[in-house]
Amino acid sequence: MSRKIRMGMIGGGRGAFIGNVHRMAAALDGQIELVCGAFSSQEEKSRLSGEDLYLPTERVYGSFNEMIKIEILLDPNIRMDFVSIVTPNHMHFEPAKMALEYGFNVVCDKPLCFNLEQAYELRDLVKNSGLLFALTHNYTGYPMVKQAREMIRSGELGNIRKVVVEYPQGWLSTALEATEQKQASWRTDPQKSGIAGAMGDIGTHAENLTEYITGLEISELCADITALVPGRRLDDDGNVLLRFKNGARGILHASQIAAGEENALSIRIYGEKAGLEWHQMEPNSLHVKWLDKAMEIYRTGTANLSESTQAHTRLPAGHPEGYLEAFANIYRNVAKCIQAKQEGKQVDPVFQDFPDINDGVRGMEFIYKVIESGQSNKKWVKM
Amino acid sequence: MSRKIRMGMIGGGRGAFIGNVHRMAAALDGQIELVCGAFSSQEEKSRLSGEDLYLPTERVYGSFNEMIKIEILLDPNIRMDFVSIVTPNHMHFEPAKMALEYGFNVVCDKPLCFNLEQAYELRDLVKNSGLLFALTHNYTGYPMVKQAREMIRSGELGNIRKVVVEYPQGWLSTALEATEQKQASWRTDPQKSGIAGAMGDIGTHAENLTEYITGLEISELCADITALVPGRRLDDDGNVLLRFKNGARGILHASQIAAGEENALSIRIYGEKAGLEWHQMEPNSLHVKWLDKAMEIYRTGTANLSESTQAHTRLPAGHPEGYLEAFANIYRNVAKCIQAKQEGKQVDPVFQDFPDINDGVRGMEFIYKVIESGQSNKKWVKM
Amino acid sequence: MSRKIRMGMIGGGRGAFIGNVHRMAAALDGQIELVCGAFSSQEEKSRLSGEDLYLPTERVYGSFNEMIKIEILLDPNIRMDFVSIVTPNHMHFEPAKMALEYGFNVVCDKPLCFNLEQAYELRDLVKNSGLLFALTHNYTGYPMVKQAREMIRSGELGNIRKVVVEYPQGWLSTALEATEQKQASWRTDPQKSGIAGAMGDIGTHAENLTEYITGLEISELCADITALVPGRRLDDDGNVLLRFKNGARGILHASQIAAGEENALSIRIYGEKAGLEWHQMEPNSLHVKWLDKAMEIYRTGTANLSESTQAHTRLPAGHPEGYLEAFANIYRNVAKCIQAKQEGKQVDPVFQDFPDINDGVRGMEFIYKVIESGQSNKKWVKM
Amino acid sequence: MSRKIRMGMIGGGRGAFIGNVHRMAAALDGQIELVCGAFSSQEEKSRLSGEDLYLPTERVYGSFNEMIKIEILLDPNIRMDFVSIVTPNHMHFEPAKMALEYGFNVVCDKPLCFNLEQAYELRDLVKNSGLLFALTHNYTGYPMVKQAREMIRSGELGNIRKVVVEYPQGWLSTALEATEQKQASWRTDPQKSGIAGAMGDIGTHAENLTEYITGLEISELCADITALVPGRRLDDDGNVLLRFKNGARGILHASQIAAGEENALSIRIYGEKAGLEWHQMEPNSLHVKWLDKAMEIYRTGTANLSESTQAHTRLPAGHPEGYLEAFANIYRNVAKCIQAKQEGKQVDPVFQDFPDINDGVRGMEFIYKVIESGQSNKKWVKM
Repeated sequence: MSRKIRMGMIGGGRGAFIGNVHRMAAALDGQIELVCGAFSSQEEKSRLSGEDLYLPTERVYGSFNEMIKIEILLDPNIRMDFVSIVTPNHMHFEPAKMALEYGFNVVCDKPLCFNLEQAYELRDLVKNSGLLFALTHNYTGYPMVKQAREMIRSGELGNIRKVVVEYPQGWLSTALEATEQKQASWRTDPQKSGIAGAMGDIGTHAENLTEYITGLEISELCADITALVPGRRLDDDGNVLLRFKNGARGILHASQIAAGEENALSIRIYGEKAGLEWHQMEPNSLHVKWLDKAMEIYRTGTANLSESTQAHTRLPAGHPEGYLEAFANIYRNVAKCIQAKQEGKQVDPVFQDFPDINDGVRGMEFIYKVIESGQSNKKWVKM
Repeated sequence: MSRKIRMGMIGGGRGAFIGNVHRMAAALDGQIELVCGAFSSQEEKSRLSGEDLYLPTERVYGSFNEMIKIEILLDPNIRMDFVSIVTPNHMHFEPAKMALEYGFNVVCDKPLCFNLEQAYELRDLVKNSGLLFALTHNYTGYPMVKQAREMIRSGELGNIRKVVVEYPQGWLSTALEATEQKQASWRTDPQKSGIAGAMGDIGTHAENLTEYITGLEISELCADITALVPGRRLDDDGNVLLRFKNGARGILHASQIAAGEENALSIRIYGEKAGLEWHQMEPNSLHVKWLDKAMEIYRTGTANLSESTQAHTRLPAGHPEGYLEAFANIYRNVAKCIQAKQEGKQVDPVFQDFPDINDGVRGMEFIYKVIESGQSNKKWVKM
Repeated sequence: MSRKIRMGMIGGGRGAFIGNVHRMAAALDGQIELVCGAFSSQEEKSRLSGEDLYLPTERVYGSFNEMIKIEILLDPNIRMDFVSIVTPNHMHFEPAKMALEYGFNVVCDKPLCFNLEQAYELRDLVKNSGLLFALTHNYTGYPMVKQAREMIRSGELGNIRKVVVEYPQGWLSTALEATEQKQASWRTDPQKSGIAGAMGDIGTHAENLTEYITGLEISELCADITALVPGRRLDDDGNVLLRFKNGARGILHASQIAAGEENALSIRIYGEKAGLEWHQMEPNSLHVKWLDKAMEIYRTGTANLSESTQAHTRLPAGHPEGYLEAFANIYRNVAKCIQAKQEGKQVDPVFQDFPDINDGVRGMEFIYKVIESGQSNKKWVKM
Repeated sequence: MSRKIRMGMIGGGRGAFIGNVHRMAAALDGQIELVCGAFSSQEEKSRLSGEDLYLPTERVYGSFNEMIKIEILLDPNIRMDFVSIVTPNHMHFEPAKMALEYGFNVVCDKPLCFNLEQAYELRDLVKNSGLLFALTHNYTGYPMVKQAREMIRSGELGNIRKVVVEYPQGWLSTALEATEQKQASWRTDPQKSGIAGAMGDIGTHAENLTEYITGLEISELCADITALVPGRRLDDDGNVLLRFKNGARGILHASQIAAGEENALSIRIYGEKAGLEWHQMEPNSLHVKWLDKAMEIYRTGTANLSESTQAHTRLPAGHPEGYLEAFANIYRNVAKCIQAKQEGKQVDPVFQDFPDINDGVRGMEFIYKVIESGQSNKKWVKM
């Protein structure tokens, strides 16, 4: 008989933001239970966080190291099946590496890690281990993102000629890091975030979404990368010209000083026959603009959507699904894949659909190329 | 030490729609665990549904009767704390009554029950029992609904003069019940739905939302109630003129034959100084239109929102929260209230905010008055 | 050889609003020239207004009476071809009657006149004269209104079951008439406006638009008519249940105390197969919501629109056409019809499309029935 | 006594698009009358076009040369006051030059002319002549564009840090020029359009709008310029990184192969304190997004708008003004300025607001720099 998949969390203690998002996303479908965690490197904080989450004391650990070493020794009937890593960027690599080495599947927040060397090492580890590794580029989990991807795959738009992807936020319009706000603080710190600020934090989402939906590969890019808030140590704004292998042109821009913008990831894709438009902040609509007939709006939960779209939808039309539901689609698919593996079954390919280690490496390469281009007088940098 | 609140479910077996919604809503915040269920009156179906949900066999029951009688005898350390009733209307009353009589708290889907007599009996039972009774008028759970309510309460709009509330759906535009589609089937059957179709199913949501946000009471109404699809046995369209105790005027219309509409609940409220507008399908925006300055759009997760709005928000601005999150706000508040009671603590009033037995009775009265008006030649029916 | 059609204006002097709208609408297409006017009953004001408009002194008159009597004697090569009446409601009848009696075509602002008796008398006059009489229910002039009408006519929606038409404005939310604001002043004065306020001023637009687009006739109605601003002498808010001859149901509401609303006329029409939605404030989009395929948005200037839509469009897609262009469509069609008549030619039926005396009479009947219903305890009033 | 200003048109004969736009824009406010024209270089076509426009035969000319030479000899009481040049790009220079040399004011369609040399020569001519020269960058005529400009000028947004301006169209997604469609044909022909296609036709609108609203100057740019439709001889897509003198960053993209897009010019401007957003296709709304309070939507015709906004608005709020009204604002201002000059009066500075020869030269320089950058391997090209 099947059972829930068991999750151990690394990071996400009191005061953290993304850890709770991961927990809600994992819980939503009743396929995963949180069984243990090392929620903070401060033991007391980890303990209190575990208490908040109603975990038994003995499954709350003071470090990921301890957690992995003890969990591996537990009865397989209670032992965690995978770890979820929700720490800042500079603390992804060590726990991910160790989890893989001990034979645990991994779900990891994005970007993959702190630098490119780590990324390649993780890729090798994953490939050699045969374990599942998922990266939470959560925006690919939206039903209408699946629909866009399927429509392009099936050729409805013809060859793709142009992509405009953008991710404006405004929350770093002031020097918020100076106030010790936790989210701002590590994201603008080169010791924690890596070589990029906004381009790593959100630029990689834009890059991932673009390649996921279009199936195209960026071949070269030209970037203008800036820190516009005085004193900021990492970029808070980036504007990038893109060229794709198939000859298509593109623009990618991401900003955290776009004053007043919330989380306005959007993408427009133009083919020979039609254009597509999707906005993360109104995620249940997909606009399809045809050359010679009325514009269409595809909507989550309505008739005539792709199989994948339907498989990532929980509610009837008009019952808005949001950020957490899209995020939960990644966890749900991970759970189905782990479960199937444990039971020696096949998973329907429609559920084998979540960002993986290759997406992670690609994102890290993107960060490096964008920063390189930003510092170069040469127009085009190859990817 | 606190623990998760334990839920037993009545109804919601394989093939049901709203049961799964309740389960996801209950699971989202990690405050509630599903521990048992009587998912169907067919024992085998109940058993299979329990298996889908990874419940132990011994906590899956063949009837609510059996569930309540056995659970009451279990160790308080594992016994369910409340039942969640997610059956069709005609099967709300019996399990709710029995649960209350055995001392279990109750969460019940809307409308409250099958007829007005049952409603009054339940009200007495709840009042005498001292138990918690929540009705899932889930739309009141949205952050921007809270914001609208608080703005009106604080007098920002001045006296309210006019309300336009509407709930158009199109899914019953054809005689779907003839195809034995399960949702259509019981909702159009007077033996299961009660005296009203659309007006009971969704009209009551519109009524509840109106009185919740405005704090006004409908004093009289004039209704035109119709079944527009040939052969349909209950109304699928209703248009109602409203008068409120304070002299305000209003319109309420609900339809399930508004072809092409998804779930387009919306409300507009006009005061002396400004108008408010909220749409369930874009729930994170609240439009406030002033007489003499620029229109404002309040958005979930941004600055300067009411305490209640913030307390019902999980994510930063621009990370869309949807139907399930609003629904989950009801379950989260219920869990907090049960927990506080068990621990002998006070709950922050901001969490004592969910529709209760009075809302349920009010909804049933609304149904009766609307149907009475629909059949009358008299213009106004008092409420 | 053809020539421009010559217009004489009655009303619309300095400080007036709608007169200038008529002049801009008439001028837009270069088919009509303003040749004379009696812009005010105050001779000096009329003279100054004429000067503003660069008219020769001898064609600026102190009264409509004078204008009609003198113009009729002028050389047909310079004499006006029609009068445009842009005075308040109580001053429509006399000039319209006189113009018709002297053989001039008439364009008249809405509603048709001050009371129902006048309406019937004008109807007889028009019918007996053989002259052209146009009423500026300008909202029917929008391209997407034509498109909606044609789609319904051609059966794309199936039988119509429900209509929701609304016209909320907020500009009379305060007792603006007390400040002597000119527009507010006469509209709230029973001596000038007639028996209705908002229902005459804008309710009739809603009624006209509904019957124009759907081709349905209202058979009975039930109205709640109120003056919500203390001291106001005519209604500023009206809510009406509608029944149509074909069995369809409807709602019409119009308000001038919907605080913060601008000029939000909109209509939704639901048939067996699809629903239509049009908003005057975003007039170039027509939403068509199908039962079983993606929602469509038809847009002014794009491909695949009806012949009539195209004939009332001036610009390529994405070049917004607005209120004045729709208004100008009425004048342009009037000019084409007068020109054809003068030249003894046929006009393409696509241009014989403007509201006429029958629309005017219908509007006056609507006003009377709505006010009657508002004062009655009987539920339904026949139309 | 004042009189209407008299216009002579060059180009805009039967089958032309923009000529009729200019005529409607000029006619709207009743300040300008069309008195003569050289509508085509084919004499017969010019004659027929003049007939369509009800012009006397003797004022319809076979060439601009003839028109200018004859008109200058006419009685000043009937002679044209200015010429309006609405020909393709390669035919702007000659008539503009000649008109200026003969002492006529000029209104000219954009871009200014065929090449940069012509631009500089025209600039000198205008400066030496003391005549009025207006260029129809019509999008600056919208009331909400004025409002955006005034808000930035007054410092409400703080220093500007980022601009995103875009102009996607889809009408050249196919090789429309191969069908001999007139508009496509000359715009894609280097002999008629100049060195740029889309970047000249619409990219210059984007550049002009940006500098007009922000008051910033582009200091350097980096462009990717492409013809994506096989066989096309001029660019149909361009993506440009911008840097401004004040240190702000920007993106400008324009395309005519953005399949399904109509005429989607839009601009977003981010300052230290707020962001602005305006879309040409919904021109009456200006979104202002604040860092720490609710988003605002400013609307044409409502209260609290800048003096300039009000001076360029004709209608009350909610009566949509569109493309022609914005275009007409340029003609209206031109007429007011010519009139004042003739009468020796001062014009209110609020009306001395239309794109002029400097905007024209700036646009030509932009075209040259963008094309230069598109062909260069150097990253930044100075402007």
